[in-house]
Amino acid sequence: MSSVGILGGTGPAGQGVAIRLASAGYDVVLGSRDAVRATGVAAELTPRGAGSVSGAANEGAARCDVVIVATPWDSAVATVSALRESLTGKIVISMVNALSREGRELVPLYPPRGSMAAQIAHALPNTMVVGAFHHLPASEMVGLDSGLDADVIIFGDDESARESVARMVESMPGLHAVIAGTMSLASAIEAFTAVCISINIRHKAHSYVKLAGLSH
Amino acid sequence: MSSVGILGGTGPAGQGVAIRLASAGYDVVLGSRDAVRATGVAAELTPRGAGSVSGAANEGAARCDVVIVATPWDSAVATVSALRESLTGKIVISMVNALSREGRELVPLYPPRGSMAAQIAHALPNTMVVGAFHHLPASEMVGLDSGLDADVIIFGDDESARESVARMVESMPGLHAVIAGTMSLASAIEAFTAVCISINIRHKAHSYVKLAGLSH
Repeated sequence: MSSVGILGGTGPAGQGVAIRLASAGYDVVLGSRDAVRATGVAAELTPRGAGSVSGAANEGAARCDVVIVATPWDSAVATVSALRESLTGKIVISMVNALSREGRELVPLYPPRGSMAAQIAHALPNTMVVGAFHHLPASEMVGLDSGLDADVIIFGDDESARESVARMVESMPGLHAVIAGTMSLASAIEAFTAVCISINIRHKAHSYVKLAGLSH
Repeated sequence: MSSVGILGGTGPAGQGVAIRLASAGYDVVLGSRDAVRATGVAAELTPRGAGSVSGAANEGAARCDVVIVATPWDSAVATVSALRESLTGKIVISMVNALSREGRELVPLYPPRGSMAAQIAHALPNTMVVGAFHHLPASEMVGLDSGLDADVIIFGDDESARESVARMVESMPGLHAVIAGTMSLASAIEAFTAVCISINIRHKAHSYVKLAGLSH
């Protein structure tokens, strides 16, 4: 089973993906600018299954077979650009959303290239960028007993990379992979995260997207 | 019970909303540029319940108590601008999506003001514009026996108009209202329609959005 690094993985969203990847058998490296913090956060996660979660500097996470970008949106490009050599030739999964809080709502921000996935793809020309994991509620992801049964909407221009990420997602407990299409859909998928979070703030809920009527 | 007009209501999306509104007891006027066509389409819809569906020119539909805009995106502003007097002071519901087909996908187009709801609100300054009904699969909407159980994501800046539309949606069979927030979310909600339709094309499905974990 391959290893997965998560850049900026110590936040709630990164932790949730880490624990479910490890529970599916992957060896996960939580990356952070602060390796000590990453090691501490990783030690507190207790996956079920054959996989593991360890902590490292982002440089260590970037050496894994597949790398997920989970940094805040405004540091994503700088982070991946500094790691370009380690990332060359790899599948890079963007779960980054550009969002801003305005009162009770989160609102989407549109980066100059339309989406964070496109920003990352431009910074990493020799990688296969795939978008996934945008709409998931972090609290339900971290708790393996939360009963989560969510659809993960996947996009990217490289068909085999998309398929590979879909297989990874399908192996994770509580998640189903739904390939939506190409990078043309990136802005719409990322921006919808603002809608999901705003609904959860307003309705004091931890809801998530299910596509009714899709057979898995 | 109030009357509801649907501008450009003879397309599949407008028909689906019409039959479910009429089944909830509303008297619906399907509007079209071609009143004869609207009358013909309306005659073929057989709602269940106390309501009715009739056809008229868009001018007739615009005289209803509440008016829904269901025209193609590129004629929405021209259509509502011509009807400004009839629409003044009313709740105007935009279900318009600006989309373009590219191969197997639909991709979102971003209108100059960010969303079609914002375009319509700018054209109709003395109305209360609310967005709703964007993500629904037309075929499942028209067939009252389709088993549809969909969430309708609602947005707008006028709180009482939003609540009023939510009550209307809740009364329609197979639909649940979820208020997301203000017009700041319009572009994200409209653009996500491209994702829903692209998924359905790719997966040969008629899926629709459910927000798991929201209590209705």
